[in-house]
This record gives sequence, structure tokens and C-alpha cells, in this order.
Amino acid sequence: MSATTPAQHSEQPGRIMSGEMAEQPAVLRRILTEGAPKIREVAERIAARNPRFVLLTARGTSDNAALYAKYLLEVQLGKPCGLTSMSTTTAYGAQPDLTDCLVITVSQSGGSPDLVASTKAARAAGAITLAVTNNADSPLAEVSEFHIDVLAGPEKALPATKTYTAELLALYLFVEGLRGGDGAAAKALPDLAESVLARQDEVKALAARYRFAERMVLTSRGYGYPTAKEAALKLMETSYIPALSYSGADLLHGPLAMVDNISPVIAIVTEGKGGEALQPVLERLRGRGADLVVVGSQGEVDKAAAGFALPTDGVAEEVQPILEILPLQMLAYEVTIARGQDPDAPRSLAKVTETR
Amino acid sequence: MSATTPAQHSEQPGRIMSGEMAEQPAVLRRILTEGAPKIREVAERIAARNPRFVLLTARGTSDNAALYAKYLLEVQLGKPCGLTSMSTTTAYGAQPDLTDCLVITVSQSGGSPDLVASTKAARAAGAITLAVTNNADSPLAEVSEFHIDVLAGPEKALPATKTYTAELLALYLFVEGLRGGDGAAAKALPDLAESVLARQDEVKALAARYRFAERMVLTSRGYGYPTAKEAALKLMETSYIPALSYSGADLLHGPLAMVDNISPVIAIVTEGKGGEALQPVLERLRGRGADLVVVGSQGEVDKAAAGFALPTDGVAEEVQPILEILPLQMLAYEVTIARGQDPDAPRSLAKVTETR
Repeated sequence: MSATTPAQHSEQPGRIMSGEMAEQPAVLRRILTEGAPKIREVAERIAARNPRFVLLTARGTSDNAALYAKYLLEVQLGKPCGLTSMSTTTAYGAQPDLTDCLVITVSQSGGSPDLVASTKAARAAGAITLAVTNNADSPLAEVSEFHIDVLAGPEKALPATKTYTAELLALYLFVEGLRGGDGAAAKALPDLAESVLARQDEVKALAARYRFAERMVLTSRGYGYPTAKEAALKLMETSYIPALSYSGADLLHGPLAMVDNISPVIAIVTEGKGGEALQPVLERLRGRGADLVVVGSQGEVDKAAAGFALPTDGVAEEVQPILEILPLQMLAYEVTIARGQDPDAPRSLAKVTETR
Repeated sequence: MSATTPAQHSEQPGRIMSGEMAEQPAVLRRILTEGAPKIREVAERIAARNPRFVLLTARGTSDNAALYAKYLLEVQLGKPCGLTSMSTTTAYGAQPDLTDCLVITVSQSGGSPDLVASTKAARAAGAITLAVTNNADSPLAEVSEFHIDVLAGPEKALPATKTYTAELLALYLFVEGLRGGDGAAAKALPDLAESVLARQDEVKALAARYRFAERMVLTSRGYGYPTAKEAALKLMETSYIPALSYSGADLLHGPLAMVDNISPVIAIVTEGKGGEALQPVLERLRGRGADLVVVGSQGEVDKAAAGFALPTDGVAEEVQPILEILPLQMLAYEVTIARGQDPDAPRSLAKVTETR
């Protein structure tokens, strides 16, 4: 993306965002066919260098994709990871020794100066650098030793949708490549994404619940936690509803006090160990009479006030986040439309955010 | 803290919390005199092992103290750091190789089972383990190779205050010990904290602004970012106001859309490089007509709608967070009292949160 001005207002509010959401199955297919061999090659070259630690650098939506990668790297690969506090480099000039360290920078545009600066600094400090972007010609791709193109095509709506799921899938395939996996768990995703995106009417009905919400709380655990964060960001930047996201464990350490019958809760219950670990939190929420909406398996939805059932049978836990975010993107879109606003062009945002 | 039941209701709402806030200068003094030699000894023993990477593990308030330590370790010491996603160990059974890795677990009570389990797992995986707690007899202190006692004395109010500033100071002295610094920047803190805490009337006046606030946004950059997060947590768990916190850079990547003249913003402007890096964000906020309250130097407060001026002359940037949080703790307290609620006993919270 080279546009630095807000997307032009569409005649029909949300036309651009809904078009890009609808492209997601095709983008996922493209990554699995055209993208996968290149991703595997990059992964194999990096695996040969045997990095001991991984630092992930990103902002906004891409930061949530980076968090997903952190779970994958820690669980699937046993690599200790950290998310970069970028200002330690860009504002304070920290000069860490990054030998044996893989630094992955995730950015839709590959254009933000702070990401470019911190990646350059990391490379100079001895890190193996990998950029994951939607723009192979970007400054970030250029300063990084390795680059993965997420092949999502130009994204024009200000709220990122197809680049998020593209980043998730590219990062999943990359970690599969690092550990010598075959990535088979991802094969069914394009078709499943298509079936989820077709259920717009269900999301419209859910959106009606939140037409007048003053605030929302989103929670999950494990692989689904990045989904909760990304859904909160999407809701905030489109509908302007203050949406707070917490891992289920952190929710119990304080913010739970804020949850009551006027703070609706959306729980992302990933089918597997993350969802299991979330059960005590769901019990506490039910015990408090919280308005609980679940995104997860049909069984989990049935136990809640309402929800959106995802296909989870035979879908590996670690790829479920690529489906989980879809109804929540749609929800952000529908709530915003219901409130008479334009999801394509949130006030005061530019597509490429130039932070330093 | 061994109490697992909520603190008893005080006859006078907030009496326990205000008493514990008032103890902070004495606690800081105690750490500088009684605590410092032991902290230095632990630091020297760990420095001799020359850890290459640091992972920080904590939840809630202690997680904000851990984030402060992350900035110190990266900026002052050049050690790459990460904050642990605990569920990767406790739910998914990840088994990373943690040779050369220092794992610091921060916890007021030292009692939460997930912290104990993940610290045990880290030690078994080869990490150097350090517990920073307010309870030398806690299970966490026992399973860790090293322990630092933050010497705050029993904390009975549910919102943590004195244990937060105690953790910050203990972590600061620890990092000073690691890098062979003398920790001199901390010497003036007890007296300065006393002068800040005496200005209750100013905070009461500020609190009146937020009596009817439906939401708040807190922002900062660099060392002050943990302050923004901790202040948001404090406001939420006492007053139940949804308070969102973002690093200034992240605020521009999306959530800015949510800021308008009904979403008051509190900016923590740490005097130094963090505050400088925040300036473009403050300009954007002023440009949007945001209701901006500043905690920082007198000069920064003068440019805002209102604020609380901190002593910053001659106060090193890296120790300012230990003062910054004080007026914000007081603000959470005063807003809560003004709303007719009891800050000592937020609904549905227990002092020791047993997450697994």
C-alpha cells in the first residue's frame, strides 16, 4: 500500500471494507498455492541458522498477528519469544546483542518509519531479520534479510481485514516450515472461511445487541487471545465502541470488577487447550450474570446467551484463529453500519501510520 | 499476603487503600536501606551467570511492573526481553530451551498457581529464575532459585498500590545491580513521593472532571507506558470506568478513531526521551480537540487542559514512573469515592487471584 491519504469515501458506506472481507477465502487460497513454496524456502533457510530466541515487532492489527505467531513459536517450536517495545530502540537508542535472535517484523504496508528503523537496528545488532508484509517493494522488505509477501493484494479500507488473516496464515506456514511440519491443517481454511463469511444474516442479528452498547469486553485464552485483541481493535476503529480485551487469566486479576450486566462480554472459545483453560473464566462470568456471547464451537455457543458457531470439527486448534476473526470483523462492520457510520473511513486515521 | 478472602469492608470506604497509599514513602525508604544490599547481592550473582535473554512473567499490577523492568533491561542493559504468555506453558505444555535465559516472575502474593507452575517449568528448562514478591515465604519464592523481597508489608486493600511502587523500585535497583550502577537516581524518591502524596486536594479537583466519565483513554511512551497501563487498571478495578491504555504510537494505529470530546485522555509525559517521542501524539490529540490531562513536568501540564505537575528537575527519566503512578492511584481512589463506591473492596475480586 502506498496511499498515505485516507481512502476516498465510497458512495455506499462500508463497500470497500465488505469487499475486502469477502476476498479473504481467495487470499487464503493464493497463499496456500502461490505463497507456500516461497514461505517454506524462507523458513528452511532460517531454520538452518537455528535461532534461539525470537522477537516480534509490529503495531496495530499486525501486532495481533505477531502475538499469534508468538503462541505458535512457543508452543509448536519451544522458542522463547518477546514482543518488541519499539521505543527502546527508536527513542532510547538501545543496542542489544541480537546474535542467535530472529527478529520478525510484521506490517501490512511495510512503510512505517519506526518499523524500518528498528529492523535496520536489529540487523546491525546481529539478528536474522524477516519482514512479513503485503508489499514486496516496501522499505521494510528492503532492509530485512528475508521477506515473506502475504499476497493479499491492495488493501484500501482503513480497517485491515484481509491482510490480518493473510498475515496469520503466512506466519502459520512459516512456523510449520521452521519445524518441518506440512501445514496440512490449513488446507481446509479457504472453504471454511467462505462458509463463515456467507452467514452475514446471523452476524446482523448479533450486531443488533450492540447497537447501543457503551463498552464491550472481549476475552479468550491461548491461540484465541490475539483474536480477542484484534476484534477489540476492529470494533474500536470502526464503531468507536470502547472495547477492552484481556486474556481470561488477566481478566480475573482486576478488570473483572468492571464487568456487569451493562458490559457485554464476547468470549472467543478456541476448541482445544485454550478453550479448556478459559472454562473457569466463563463460569465466573456466568456467575456474575454477564451478557456472554461466544464465538466457538456449537457446544460452547449453546451454553451462552448467544453466539456464532464456528466449524471446529477436525480443525486444528492452532489454525482456528484464522476463522475466529471473520464473524468479529463482520460484527464490527455491521455494528458500524447500524450506527449510521462508514466503516471504510474512520475519522482521523490514515492507512499508513507514520510513527517514529 | 496469605488472605484469600476479600478484605473486610472498612467502616470508612477507602480507608485501607488510602492508608496503604500513604505508606509508600516509608516502603521506598525501607527498600533503599534494608532491601538494597540483598538486591545488589542477588543482582551480582545473576550478572556473573551472564544471561543473554530475559523473560518476565506476571499478571495484573505486577505485569505492569514487569513491563517497566523490560524497558530498563532493554535500554540500560541491552538485553532482549519478552513478556511471557503463560498459557503456552500452563495450558499447552510448551517446553522451551531456556539455557542462558533469566526468567523473572513478579507477584505481590507469590501465591498464584500458574506463576508457580510456570516458574518451576522455566527452572527445569534451564533458566535462571528470580522471584520478586512481597512474601518471602510464598510458594513462588520457594520454587525460584533467587528471590527479592519488596518489603512492602501486608497489603490488604484489593487495589495494589504500595506493592506496585515497591516492585518498581526493587526492579530498578536490581537492574542497577546487574549493570554495576549505584542506583543513586532513586535516593530522592521517598521525599519526592511524600510531597506528591500530600497534594490530595489537587487530585480531588481533577477527579471532579471524571465523576461522570463513561470511558477514559490513557497514553504514554517509553518508561511511562507501564504507568498508563497501571493507571488504567487501577481506574477500572476501583471506579469500573472502562479505561483503555495505549502506547502513543499504538494509539495512532487505530484506537485514535475512538478519541473525541467525550473520551477524556490522560497522557503521562515522562520528562526525557519518552516524553519527546510522545509529542507528535499530543499534537494529534490537541488537534482533535481531545480533553487532555497531563501528568508530567509543569511545562507539559501548562500546555494541557489540566494536569498534575510532578517534580522532574534532576529526577532521572527511568525512575520517574515511581512518582508518576502516585497521583493516578489517588485519582482512581478519589473518582471512586466521588461515585459513592468503596475502593477497598471492588466487587468480585479476591486479593490472591488463583489462575491456572
